[in-house]
Amino acid sequence: MENFVFQNPTKIIFGKGTESAVGKELKAHTNKVLLHYGGGSIKKTGLYDRICASLKEAGVAWTELPGVQPNPRLSLVRKGIEICRQEQIDFILAVGGGSVIDSAKAIALGVVDDGDVWDFYMKKRTPTKALPVGVVLTIPAAGSEASNSSVVTSEDGWYKRYVDAEVLRPKFSILNPELTLTLTVEQTMIGIADMTAHIIERYFTQVPNVELTDRLIEGTFKTLIRNAHILYKEPHNYAARSEIMWSGTVAHNDWLSTGRIGDWGSHMIEHELSGIYDIPHGAGLAIIIPAWMQYVYKANVAKFAQFGNRIFDVEANFGSPEETALEAIRRLKSFYQSIGLPVSLSTVNIPGDRLAEMAAKCVENGPVGNFLKLYKEDVQKILQLAL
Amino acid sequence: MENFVFQNPTKIIFGKGTESAVGKELKAHTNKVLLHYGGGSIKKTGLYDRICASLKEAGVAWTELPGVQPNPRLSLVRKGIEICRQEQIDFILAVGGGSVIDSAKAIALGVVDDGDVWDFYMKKRTPTKALPVGVVLTIPAAGSEASNSSVVTSEDGWYKRYVDAEVLRPKFSILNPELTLTLTVEQTMIGIADMTAHIIERYFTQVPNVELTDRLIEGTFKTLIRNAHILYKEPHNYAARSEIMWSGTVAHNDWLSTGRIGDWGSHMIEHELSGIYDIPHGAGLAIIIPAWMQYVYKANVAKFAQFGNRIFDVEANFGSPEETALEAIRRLKSFYQSIGLPVSLSTVNIPGDRLAEMAAKCVENGPVGNFLKLYKEDVQKILQLAL
Repeated sequence: MENFVFQNPTKIIFGKGTESAVGKELKAHTNKVLLHYGGGSIKKTGLYDRICASLKEAGVAWTELPGVQPNPRLSLVRKGIEICRQEQIDFILAVGGGSVIDSAKAIALGVVDDGDVWDFYMKKRTPTKALPVGVVLTIPAAGSEASNSSVVTSEDGWYKRYVDAEVLRPKFSILNPELTLTLTVEQTMIGIADMTAHIIERYFTQVPNVELTDRLIEGTFKTLIRNAHILYKEPHNYAARSEIMWSGTVAHNDWLSTGRIGDWGSHMIEHELSGIYDIPHGAGLAIIIPAWMQYVYKANVAKFAQFGNRIFDVEANFGSPEETALEAIRRLKSFYQSIGLPVSLSTVNIPGDRLAEMAAKCVENGPVGNFLKLYKEDVQKILQLAL
Repeated sequence: MENFVFQNPTKIIFGKGTESAVGKELKAHTNKVLLHYGGGSIKKTGLYDRICASLKEAGVAWTELPGVQPNPRLSLVRKGIEICRQEQIDFILAVGGGSVIDSAKAIALGVVDDGDVWDFYMKKRTPTKALPVGVVLTIPAAGSEASNSSVVTSEDGWYKRYVDAEVLRPKFSILNPELTLTLTVEQTMIGIADMTAHIIERYFTQVPNVELTDRLIEGTFKTLIRNAHILYKEPHNYAARSEIMWSGTVAHNDWLSTGRIGDWGSHMIEHELSGIYDIPHGAGLAIIIPAWMQYVYKANVAKFAQFGNRIFDVEANFGSPEETALEAIRRLKSFYQSIGLPVSLSTVNIPGDRLAEMAAKCVENGPVGNFLKLYKEDVQKILQLAL
């Protein structure tokens, strides 16, 4: 186990009807917020009205900035920064999924900074302050509701880049699984793929003696598998929606990172995919991860064998741990397929003609991944395996 | 799953050599602390000198209050409150195990309160404020380093009582597993018993659909079992010390409580034991829990069968889940025995002549436990089963 510092002060308000608490929660921090959301589905579901009623009741004023797209864009972030400055807004309320939250976090960074907010994403500078952000979550997937990270896409060159900073953890996040009952099966499963990716990136570490967190990740993964299968058949099952929603937060709030060094190579590769082709991040991960696994498993066969044995109940073959490891990768792939996810680039009609370009962009700042360091040719081979 | 609110802002600083950070951490909060510790073992190990050096370097002054005993006493708490008031101290630094931390929390409650601090423990009033507390942990067991609770014993009638309040979570806790390498095997195993008790109390709930947290608890329990056995043979194994130390925090920091209603009946019964007989809390729990299980398992046989199957690898007998459940209780008992813990009152020379008195005291404020509500006669029967 590595030495670590852990602190996650985000207040989680979880369960039925909890969005009605949003006004009261905000009032403890501010009198005026930027109400940031996406394409307007929150108006169709009535959530928008309930949020506005709660804000009014608490005496919290707001200015709206809708229009966040999946893979949120830097141009809208810049617009949000401008609005907050003009209207002296000191709190961002994100109502939506990971894209809305990440866009809100980017605005929160930019408002209090004199330079270009994109610098933080291009790792030119490290953020030390941000406006506070609050969340009403509608799509469980990205885990941004309690994470320290934000991912934004710049239209200039279609760079999709992330920033990590403790100041980005939301002050509070309201998680009502009822709000997720109307998500389509496809949206739900793409979100679950993202959750599995977050814990896979943490699981595959070369740090020895990380037993507790290994086991916590394994338990979280088993929960995702069982409840994904339930929701694939019964999307209106509240209990399964609850398990998935809370698992999505736990997968990325860093409880499962303590004492470990995660990999994150698959995320870096996927960002090139969804940066250029604008596919959903979760679907891209379901494609990239099995290919990544096939390419890297020899760097620690025992870890892959443990993954298969403990999560997918693959019988341990001590005579050939490699057999157990390979069966683990097959099982993960068929899990993704069993919930309707793509596991190859061809399935989502991405051709093989820009693999070298994506590989080059991916390693612009040096090799990616920690389980096995990946250089340009490695990334390109992984993308090829994903075809 | 129940609706829940969760927030645990305690900063954890974990790993080798981390106690040297104590001065710097404190300086962010205060210029003068009450340095609270136990019988002086920290002087023998050199920890005291390292703490003092770090405080001096950071420019943090201190007044000392040593002398915390296991099952910390109200009289010393009152003394601490007086010192803090006289010297206008606004931060308590606890260096020790659960008893020192709980005593520090009690002082922190009392200093800012006009009434009698014992009122909070007797549930006459609910605390809403407290001085901040910081921790350097030396005995992993109670989990108080990130919990919202404090347990204190009043010498007037030997009442051992607890208080829960969010204001009691420490600002920071420094956890260096190296500091635990000198604990005896007996101290270590008593601490581990306390950790198992914290997760057993959470596990046995009648709330349905708590899959994620069930699995997280199961993973934590498996980690405790494996590493207890390692430390029983190799008390100087740093990796196992790390797993145990972090597991002890996770067992009680409420990650594993989200959406559940814990039982806590065994804790209430044990408090009567250690209140009167002054035995270590962990040892008392290893005695009470198996007896409690034997008495209550019929209230939810399936949960006990799952406990045995998933944690102790008891083969599931679907024809007779009761057989699986009973085998689970036997396995827990033999786990405790295998690490040298007592599993009966007679082993620790506690006779059966005061069972009725303890049972009566235990339910003075009404029945205890949530898995099955326990009245006086139930508690007495459980104590009898523990003879």
